[in-house]
Amino acid sequence: VANTRVELIATGDELLNGSVVDTNSPWLMERLVALGLPVWRKTIIGDDHPAIVAALRLAAEDSDVAIVSGGLGPTSDDLTAACAADAAGVELRLDPATLKSIEARLSARGFPLSSNNRKQALVPTGATIFANRFGTAPMFELPLRRARFFFLPGVPREFFGLVEEILLPALSGLAATAPLRRTKVLKTYGLPESQLDQKLNDLPSLFPGLSLGYRTTLPENHAKLTTVGTTAADNLKAATVEARRRLGLNCFAEDESTFSAAVVATLLAHGATLAVAESITAGRIASLIAETPGVSKVLRGGFVTYTDETKHALLGVPRELIAKHGAVSGPVAEAMAVGARERAGASYAVATTGLAGPEGDAHHPIGTVFTALASESNVCSIGHRFPGDRAGIREFAAYAALDVLRRDLLTRSS
Amino acid sequence: VANTRVELIATGDELLNGSVVDTNSPWLMERLVALGLPVWRKTIIGDDHPAIVAALRLAAEDSDVAIVSGGLGPTSDDLTAACAADAAGVELRLDPATLKSIEARLSARGFPLSSNNRKQALVPTGATIFANRFGTAPMFELPLRRARFFFLPGVPREFFGLVEEILLPALSGLAATAPLRRTKVLKTYGLPESQLDQKLNDLPSLFPGLSLGYRTTLPENHAKLTTVGTTAADNLKAATVEARRRLGLNCFAEDESTFSAAVVATLLAHGATLAVAESITAGRIASLIAETPGVSKVLRGGFVTYTDETKHALLGVPRELIAKHGAVSGPVAEAMAVGARERAGASYAVATTGLAGPEGDAHHPIGTVFTALASESNVCSIGHRFPGDRAGIREFAAYAALDVLRRDLLTRSS
Repeated sequence: VANTRVELIATGDELLNGSVVDTNSPWLMERLVALGLPVWRKTIIGDDHPAIVAALRLAAEDSDVAIVSGGLGPTSDDLTAACAADAAGVELRLDPATLKSIEARLSARGFPLSSNNRKQALVPTGATIFANRFGTAPMFELPLRRARFFFLPGVPREFFGLVEEILLPALSGLAATAPLRRTKVLKTYGLPESQLDQKLNDLPSLFPGLSLGYRTTLPENHAKLTTVGTTAADNLKAATVEARRRLGLNCFAEDESTFSAAVVATLLAHGATLAVAESITAGRIASLIAETPGVSKVLRGGFVTYTDETKHALLGVPRELIAKHGAVSGPVAEAMAVGARERAGASYAVATTGLAGPEGDAHHPIGTVFTALASESNVCSIGHRFPGDRAGIREFAAYAALDVLRRDLLTRSS
Repeated sequence: VANTRVELIATGDELLNGSVVDTNSPWLMERLVALGLPVWRKTIIGDDHPAIVAALRLAAEDSDVAIVSGGLGPTSDDLTAACAADAAGVELRLDPATLKSIEARLSARGFPLSSNNRKQALVPTGATIFANRFGTAPMFELPLRRARFFFLPGVPREFFGLVEEILLPALSGLAATAPLRRTKVLKTYGLPESQLDQKLNDLPSLFPGLSLGYRTTLPENHAKLTTVGTTAADNLKAATVEARRRLGLNCFAEDESTFSAAVVATLLAHGATLAVAESITAGRIASLIAETPGVSKVLRGGFVTYTDETKHALLGVPRELIAKHGAVSGPVAEAMAVGARERAGASYAVATTGLAGPEGDAHHPIGTVFTALASESNVCSIGHRFPGDRAGIREFAAYAALDVLRRDLLTRSS
């Protein structure tokens, strides 16, 4: 087969009632992608015998590898071994080596062997057993029609240990034949997803084997470029160059890098320092750039001035200016930026003022935001209208203020 | 049918490569459980036309309700509407009302309608369309064999909004026959999960039909009380009173209420105002309490002073004090709080200084934080040592600073 089809099945009522989020699977998915074995389907099934058997039978038809987790514990709702035997049409048998190791584990902790624990040593006839040094449940492999099935306990510590020690080495043979795959994530701000797609959607016709995907984590939009085949690395490099050329300054970072890191790196590269004056964002801008280590070299200081009075007292915004234009206005945003820059002794300052809701005012709809940028020689402001709820509007405002600064610095250098 | 079979299908490559954890589904599962409609199967499928069609066809056989999320965006990897039409054996049609609302949304932000956006108005013939006031993608319902299918966008903000406004009301008719079930979430700060469990684990023996669950979203630990049966509401009320008695001030909020809202409400109730002086948290404290609408009545002002120089220049912390004790010290935290309180004219101030890493200094390990609280009559500081990475340490520090204030105010009133 050209593409090995790998699927995951996780069992357990707790994964279906919202009380536990299955974080085993995303962790495993990442490792499988790195091996060149991406997962094509993931299913969660409760502690329900017929439903588990049906899911196993479906996987036996549809996949080459099925990795099943959960339901191998000692209690009455642990059904997986019996379901595997039913799906394969075989009996359960007692595995003496597993029983011995369970007994040894328990006696080391001073517990006797209970009939529940004895149940954990029952495995489907024909299964290959792997010793589990992380807990009492056995891990086993069972062939079933098209698929190789691997059964693992769902307890995270045991699951992680067995995946690293046994599962991934067992699958690496399959991976050798899987096609080479490389990915690059380009992170953008300032383009709606539809425009991002319009800028990039003909790239797969220019670069053979390239595929595109998109993801939105507001206010960021990400494009993911994937190439497959022996020239994947070269193709990806060329496609990335072309994509970045088209995206221009809208693209602020690649892969694991962040907007915060991009702003801090740009400030550092220009020997610039920053002050912030925040009304609507109320600390979010400072907090956002402080996510990046080393920010103390560029962040001179910040002011949260939520009220007219503190805009005047802490930043020196003239009371008449607020009375004339209103606190939510370009002139007030500019005066905030100028005041913050001077007081903190920074080369640049950004400022925000606006309405995040849920209540608006008589003059502006919710989502109205003014951002300002001040430097030694200049000050300017921009009016925005952001969509979404209170949290979304504040996040858009924080990005907008910093993005004007980032673009200004990058344009300066070119 | 005695039991309505509900299943979830989420689509998107990003959910299968480990880069995004699907948190929409656990959130929805919890709400469906509360309605008496637990999910029996959850499937994730990539952006793969035949695989999505197969999953829809399987659900049409196996379930009474299928809730499908993702793949309704404007880009070429958004396939769900076309897959739904294929699975139902119908054509796509252009929905004029949806097209109109997409056009209006885009033009409000100054963007023209692209051919991609036009694609979002294509829906399967025979589908019932629900207006989506949270975004451009339409939500629709389509009957298919045994199942009623509901299709929703996967973008969390749109998904959450449409579930609350349209999906749950549409399903509540089905839920009428399910046993009565009531839940209460108690949110705590300051108790490790094991201690929380020790305080509450005998409650099920005292209140018949009560079950307990725990969930950690650092730095918060939540306990969830669930009761079932005709007296569920009364039992829950009595169990909640007892649980809150045992948890005391560690419990800051119930259900959907937040730590931010609890702090703001406490300040309002005492007619108190707040100033913040932030070094390690760098705006996170101000930003956290500003999540709550109406915060302008209590938040007088904030200072982000990341460097020794701004601690002196903006807050008046004496240079000798920093030289003597170091910037990461109780005396400096106290001087920051005193300076912020005076300059912003607030009745209280909180301050933070510490080391979030990744680099430490010669005197303190990473995670060392000092928080301070200043009032008109008093100032005090506390030294902490928080676990985790940079982001976690900063979040713990923000909570710790505000929690001292919250407890101080609540103790004052009793």
